[in-house]
Amino acid sequence: MADFRRLSINQMTVPRWSVLELIEHCAQLGVPSISLWRHKLQETGLAESVRAVRDAGLHISSVCRGGTFPAPDAQARKERIEDNLRAIDEAAALRADALVLVVGGAHSVGIDSARSMVRDGLAALQTYATQAGVRLALEPLHPMFAGDRSVLTTIDEALALAAPYSAETVGIILDVFHIWWDPCVFKQIERASGRIFGYHVSDWPVPLPDILLGRCMMGDGIINLIPLRQAVEAAGYIGPIEVEIFNQVLWDEDPHSVLTRTIERFVQHV
Amino acid sequence: MADFRRLSINQMTVPRWSVLELIEHCAQLGVPSISLWRHKLQETGLAESVRAVRDAGLHISSVCRGGTFPAPDAQARKERIEDNLRAIDEAAALRADALVLVVGGAHSVGIDSARSMVRDGLAALQTYATQAGVRLALEPLHPMFAGDRSVLTTIDEALALAAPYSAETVGIILDVFHIWWDPCVFKQIERASGRIFGYHVSDWPVPLPDILLGRCMMGDGIINLIPLRQAVEAAGYIGPIEVEIFNQVLWDEDPHSVLTRTIERFVQHV
Repeated sequence: MADFRRLSINQMTVPRWSVLELIEHCAQLGVPSISLWRHKLQETGLAESVRAVRDAGLHISSVCRGGTFPAPDAQARKERIEDNLRAIDEAAALRADALVLVVGGAHSVGIDSARSMVRDGLAALQTYATQAGVRLALEPLHPMFAGDRSVLTTIDEALALAAPYSAETVGIILDVFHIWWDPCVFKQIERASGRIFGYHVSDWPVPLPDILLGRCMMGDGIINLIPLRQAVEAAGYIGPIEVEIFNQVLWDEDPHSVLTRTIERFVQHV
Repeated sequence: MADFRRLSINQMTVPRWSVLELIEHCAQLGVPSISLWRHKLQETGLAESVRAVRDAGLHISSVCRGGTFPAPDAQARKERIEDNLRAIDEAAALRADALVLVVGGAHSVGIDSARSMVRDGLAALQTYATQAGVRLALEPLHPMFAGDRSVLTTIDEALALAAPYSAETVGIILDVFHIWWDPCVFKQIERASGRIFGYHVSDWPVPLPDILLGRCMMGDGIINLIPLRQAVEAAGYIGPIEVEIFNQVLWDEDPHSVLTRTIERFVQHV
């Protein structure tokens, strides 16, 4: 059974709530950590969000998200770097464990150029991130997102991208939905030791109803979650475990019932 | 430009046609090779299909498909092996270059057991296939199919599965739609030298409208096809190149116009 004290609620599991509503409901139920999204922070305001997080005594496991580095022209790429620097500021203000980076897809420039722009983008952030005390967490997404969201698709590739930088500043996120299929997943988790900045859970239903909004509640899919969590622990990561479920059916439900079910399932299945 | 003489039309690109209609239209346009599906062979009858193929002077690049090894009980697994032996008979009768194996997904037994049942299933076929002179072609599918269709998701894993057997009998299919995202794809194609029994093309549109029926005509997506074909050639495969496009919009079109467009796009983009 997963330790309730490690639970973190990613805001996109209950996206109908504002930052303040999420904080209020999580504090009431004793959830120790949350992960906040930038578009939600913008709605509430960063200063007010920071204040509410501190007043509630909540821990911020991550800020979502930076990245999206590839773009066809240099000006657009520069603007994206600027936006990433603002994301670093926000993660610093919230004392988040990490800023999650979803690096961007192949569609606008082709996969080879996209990979090169991702390397350049990461290089452009890391000094600023180090100075701000913010850890950059590269998230390999499932290969079905390589076209539109992330040319970074495997743990192996994420570790290679992180390798030139200090393990104090650049690491990775392990999300079961994105990595469960990998024939080398346990070996790769072991290799990631020292670079794991976060662990995300959800589940993979069969059939998968939608690429983006099809993942499901833990226990409703086919991922064998407990061995993955144990492997991540054996690799040295004992920090918050974020529940991040993009699912239209859950989003249409009352967020409070989603939250209570999430807590039950976390303890039973993670 | 791809050599027209290497073109093969996979029947599921124009599924409204029966075996006999596919043969007739391909022969009229000088298409040298086709790939046939077992449910279509059953409709027409194997003997009549074999006769029509020979009369038209067509080459059969593959028969689709065997596999689907995992099942919760031993009796069901045995029946699947039996069905695979019949598929081998059909591929032999058609003198196909290979029988394509789509190994089956994780959903009914979990991913670890599924992988083990795939290994056992392949082992149960290979003597019979060798005696029948039929080559077994393991097809790694895109990881988004790991739940429902194929726990075999990478070239690397397919080569490991094939390794215990003779390269005369067990090899792999390389399908761009399934492998294009892999950060190691060129290295893996090189490693596959001597085991490549087929090469399949289509394209990946952004956004991908559907997991199963979303792939598109070559040139309408973002896969850089020519370097992949060249890598496959450099690895020694110079046989037929199958166009296999599962796409509901194409399926709703007049098959003859799909076929003529496929020929144009093959020469331009593959």
